[in-house]
Amino acid sequence: MTDTMLSSETKEVVIGFERPFVVIGERINPTGRKVLAAEMAEGDYSRVEQDAIAQVAAGAQMLDVNAGIPLADEPAILAEAIILVQRITDVPLSIDSSIVAALESGLAVYKGKALVNSVTGEEERLEAVLPLVKKHGAAVVAISNDETGISEDPDERFAVAKKIVERAEDYGISRSDVIVDPLVMPVGAINQAGRQVMHILRRLHGELKVNTTCGASNFSFGLPNRNGINSAFLNMAIGAGLTSAITSPLHDEVMQAVLGADVMMGHDPDCRAWIKKYRTPMPEGMDGARGRRQSRRRRA
Amino acid sequence: MTDTMLSSETKEVVIGFERPFVVIGERINPTGRKVLAAEMAEGDYSRVEQDAIAQVAAGAQMLDVNAGIPLADEPAILAEAIILVQRITDVPLSIDSSIVAALESGLAVYKGKALVNSVTGEEERLEAVLPLVKKHGAAVVAISNDETGISEDPDERFAVAKKIVERAEDYGISRSDVIVDPLVMPVGAINQAGRQVMHILRRLHGELKVNTTCGASNFSFGLPNRNGINSAFLNMAIGAGLTSAITSPLHDEVMQAVLGADVMMGHDPDCRAWIKKYRTPMPEGMDGARGRRQSRRRRA
Repeated sequence: MTDTMLSSETKEVVIGFERPFVVIGERINPTGRKVLAAEMAEGDYSRVEQDAIAQVAAGAQMLDVNAGIPLADEPAILAEAIILVQRITDVPLSIDSSIVAALESGLAVYKGKALVNSVTGEEERLEAVLPLVKKHGAAVVAISNDETGISEDPDERFAVAKKIVERAEDYGISRSDVIVDPLVMPVGAINQAGRQVMHILRRLHGELKVNTTCGASNFSFGLPNRNGINSAFLNMAIGAGLTSAITSPLHDEVMQAVLGADVMMGHDPDCRAWIKKYRTPMPEGMDGARGRRQSRRRRA
Repeated sequence: MTDTMLSSETKEVVIGFERPFVVIGERINPTGRKVLAAEMAEGDYSRVEQDAIAQVAAGAQMLDVNAGIPLADEPAILAEAIILVQRITDVPLSIDSSIVAALESGLAVYKGKALVNSVTGEEERLEAVLPLVKKHGAAVVAISNDETGISEDPDERFAVAKKIVERAEDYGISRSDVIVDPLVMPVGAINQAGRQVMHILRRLHGELKVNTTCGASNFSFGLPNRNGINSAFLNMAIGAGLTSAITSPLHDEVMQAVLGADVMMGHDPDCRAWIKKYRTPMPEGMDGARGRRQSRRRRA
């Protein structure tokens, strides 16, 4: 039973083995979104604002914030975006950058306990990112690749994850504050990608006993009906131990898969969340079977 | 790697650990279908015919045939239904009855290697059904309950399944010809029903090394948006080792979950079945991006 607590100024979210699955909204990310990138580079955060509000409304318990725009001042833009998103929502954030200075400026303005996204198993990254995570009392996403790249062998990826967890402990970061990303490959390219990810997730859950996250939609890259594939991926990955994902809550099918997974895992007591979401609303003035019977009698 | 081969007169279907998931169509069953029951009792099999054709068209690789109508001559009706269904479809059948004489009459007319549905761990049933299965060279569904009823403890249900498998071997029935039904409880009543079923499926797959089936839709009994719950159930159960299910192929969401599970399990080489089903058809005379660009140029 591993719990990772993240927080904003006013709200805590716990990612854990015996908790409902946590969706970290992926939308605030200019990669591949030219309009958003151009707007953010010019200091226009209106779309960031819309994306933040829409994702929380759709059920994201956390939001990922990325400002990776080529040639732009990423540390400044990321800090501004974080300040804005923290002003208009109350969910904890994942501060997402491959630039250490950007992680640093994001952490400097962040209120609460953030998720730093990410550190890899590369020596240079470990030495730069882990002290920052420790200094700010944050949690961190550990991506299971190193100097040799991404191994196709899930057991090698597991070994990299283990190294990062142990190194974090050397820096005084508890293993419950390291969330491992096992790296999801597109199944259109690697037919065994699903099996690989379930294998490593079972080991991360059972042996290393860490929480996990991933960029879930990468699995369906290049295939038709991506939400259908993403649903199957999320369900089976959650069954194998996945406890959170960076994905889009704006697709109904994805959120349905997550809520259904909570039911399957016994993490939705009395199926209350499921029933609340999918119960057919009664016509006004009626209340279940009794109401329907009375109305029939009245018509007769 | 366990393979169970079933056949009709002309077609073989293999349920197995490294095979695409097998959907056994559940619709030909008068339980809870008053009109169908009345028609079958009067010798009118038109609806049986429609159900058979529609389920095969929707992707069922096998069909379950049940004729359980109170006060009717079940052995005769079941035999007639089987003869009819074998005449109009080529898929192997599951002969479904709790009456041994009906299983016997069904087996007597069946052409191919049938699936006998079912035997329980009750002494009397074992002694009546297993010799029949052996005599006809059939396979059998083993339901994991016994004289004491259905245990809520999945490990006790596993023990019953193990007893049936061993008893079948005493009768000369190979373990690969026993398909265990772990018994699926409604999650609306038992919050841990999903966890229980995944636990027993992992043991059946990893320790007893048998194929498995279940009445999948029972899981969502009483809940709204049943297809949504059934999709999550199927995906996570398949991830835990389920290799077939008696369910309805007529719901698109259910078939999407099954095809998505095949992709996740690496049982859909190059995602061919997924792409075939969900690829957006091109307008006539066009062929991908090149076609679209040409047509735009033509319009300009």
